[in-house]
Amino acid sequence: MATATPAAETEVKEEEQVVNPWEVSAGKGGIDYDKLVDQFGCQRIDAALVDRIARLTARPPHRFLRRGLFFAHRDLSEVLDLYERGEKFYLYTGRGPSSEALHLGHLIPFMFTKYLQDAFKVPLVIQLTDDEKFLWKNLTVEECKRLARENAKDIIACGFDVERTFIFSDFEFVGGKFYENMVKISKCVTCNKAVGIFGFSPEDPIGKYSFPPVQAAPSFPSSFPHLFGGNNQLRCLIPCAIDQGENTKMSASDPNSAIYVTDTPKEIKNKVNRYAFSGGQDSIELHRKLGANLDVDVPIKYLNFFLEDDDELERIKTEYKEGRMLTGEVKQRLVEVLSGMVARHQRARAQVTEEMVDAFMAARPLPNMFG
Amino acid sequence: MATATPAAETEVKEEEQVVNPWEVSAGKGGIDYDKLVDQFGCQRIDAALVDRIARLTARPPHRFLRRGLFFAHRDLSEVLDLYERGEKFYLYTGRGPSSEALHLGHLIPFMFTKYLQDAFKVPLVIQLTDDEKFLWKNLTVEECKRLARENAKDIIACGFDVERTFIFSDFEFVGGKFYENMVKISKCVTCNKAVGIFGFSPEDPIGKYSFPPVQAAPSFPSSFPHLFGGNNQLRCLIPCAIDQGENTKMSASDPNSAIYVTDTPKEIKNKVNRYAFSGGQDSIELHRKLGANLDVDVPIKYLNFFLEDDDELERIKTEYKEGRMLTGEVKQRLVEVLSGMVARHQRARAQVTEEMVDAFMAARPLPNMFG
Repeated sequence: MATATPAAETEVKEEEQVVNPWEVSAGKGGIDYDKLVDQFGCQRIDAALVDRIARLTARPPHRFLRRGLFFAHRDLSEVLDLYERGEKFYLYTGRGPSSEALHLGHLIPFMFTKYLQDAFKVPLVIQLTDDEKFLWKNLTVEECKRLARENAKDIIACGFDVERTFIFSDFEFVGGKFYENMVKISKCVTCNKAVGIFGFSPEDPIGKYSFPPVQAAPSFPSSFPHLFGGNNQLRCLIPCAIDQGENTKMSASDPNSAIYVTDTPKEIKNKVNRYAFSGGQDSIELHRKLGANLDVDVPIKYLNFFLEDDDELERIKTEYKEGRMLTGEVKQRLVEVLSGMVARHQRARAQVTEEMVDAFMAARPLPNMFG
Repeated sequence: MATATPAAETEVKEEEQVVNPWEVSAGKGGIDYDKLVDQFGCQRIDAALVDRIARLTARPPHRFLRRGLFFAHRDLSEVLDLYERGEKFYLYTGRGPSSEALHLGHLIPFMFTKYLQDAFKVPLVIQLTDDEKFLWKNLTVEECKRLARENAKDIIACGFDVERTFIFSDFEFVGGKFYENMVKISKCVTCNKAVGIFGFSPEDPIGKYSFPPVQAAPSFPSSFPHLFGGNNQLRCLIPCAIDQGENTKMSASDPNSAIYVTDTPKEIKNKVNRYAFSGGQDSIELHRKLGANLDVDVPIKYLNFFLEDDDELERIKTEYKEGRMLTGEVKQRLVEVLSGMVARHQRARAQVTEEMVDAFMAARPLPNMFG
């Protein structure tokens, strides 16, 4: 990207001068633009550059350029180099819709952008950051969306060409109702709270800080208008495991000891026999005498999860505990259970076609979902 | 929402026990589930609750319920109360797709969810957090999306009903290419950096921390596949004002002194005459003798922005500076310029229909945008 004035997304602090997207406070004597240009890593828009723009567009430069009111840039020369060789570019500007009526200062970037669009004959995207205003101001989502649309009218009135201009509201375009819920959730959680709950560090990317609302949004039926359109009181039940990562390995110390749904019967047999910690005794004689300690026995834990038959499970537990059944026999039954289950999964998965995946993943109504 | 085990989105720290969505580390003797239930604010799933589920669904409870493997809940009784009165609910579960093959532990929540779907006959949404895995792991977006689709096959193989089940990838469903770019950008900026640049505080909501990528995403043509599909090398030029909030008031100390696009000619005249700071002298005699100080004169600043004619502007500045033109005359010309401009804007805005707004805001191709 290139900019025609310093990017507003950088902050310059020196003495009392603060310029960031949400704050402009000048030091004594007003904003020091030279300092800004330096600190934002920009170049001045000089007379030669203005002449070049006039030549390339075959029209007089805008008064904002003639009079040095748009005074700095980043990479504009490079964009013009490419333009001269026939490679076009696109324009991007925007507005945070927090009030009904714009003042003349708000119009200035749009006036200049319209000139650029007309002069270079290039497309333009205009972002209305209704989500930003919802986060920063005490306004409802609906009010922010309404203001975005009202402001769009003022922007359109500046004379933009509908054949070259795409105006979008973040709430409407970025991700519809799902995104709206993400933003609502993200307004309710402070950074401190997220750090406390999730253990994020200051060196973690902001993407991690933004992720929890993505995972919370599906809890609200309004995130899925194609499924629940209107029925926003519907309850959501979330089945979840708390530590599925913890107890699924045959041996806690060996990450390769988990049983995968892709394992062969031979691999399953090997993993169970080799890694599954036994609560049985060291010798058959001792085992017959003392029996197994079920509390630490991994095969029993697995059978508890995966053997459907309650009576058989009880029988195995009793026999094993009292020493009549040996670890090898319990492991053999577990291998049967797991191999059967994994084989059934593999057969079922082999029948899942790309078309079936598309069908499940299509954002579609489910007319019989409660039927 | 209600949960059938403790919500994974909360962390419990006591001695060495840490349980959050990305970390499970047990204290001595393994996870203390009683402690978890307490600290997550959950209730135990007891025999009476299991019986109630069996009665309401007219089928035996799943072995995970019979054997206390899904052992805690939040608000499940309330969901069942509503269900008993004929009000359905929906299920939400998910998976972070970071590996090709699932192990048996990964299947457990899906097995239980399938049982709930079959037993209660309710819809289910399954979130595949490919965005989460992109943020946390060293994987490309494409790889995360591929893994999401591969994992979807394993999930489908668990036997879910396509008439009741919507599986979605965050990258595909939340906001398409625009959201993909948001996430990519948000992986490149640390929290520390965002705090430094934007001045966020720990008490600010995480929504503010997540916002800068929303504003950066339009700089990349790939955010707009409907406009630039494929042409991802296209340059973007961003015209922007650095301090439009700062210099647009007639009087810096009076926020009502800005000229709005909704102002009447009378309001404009009043604001200019009353508030616009003059660089002229206190008396006509002194002004004729000393002339105006243009550097501090607000009307001249406004004419510099809004009077198109360079020659006239130069003439006014010279005459005013040398005392031949009075403040009142300069202000009168400014009132004419601003009133004309605002009136033109008001006429243009009055002609903007809702249909025109829809046309500009439709996510559509612009076939002639470079023409």
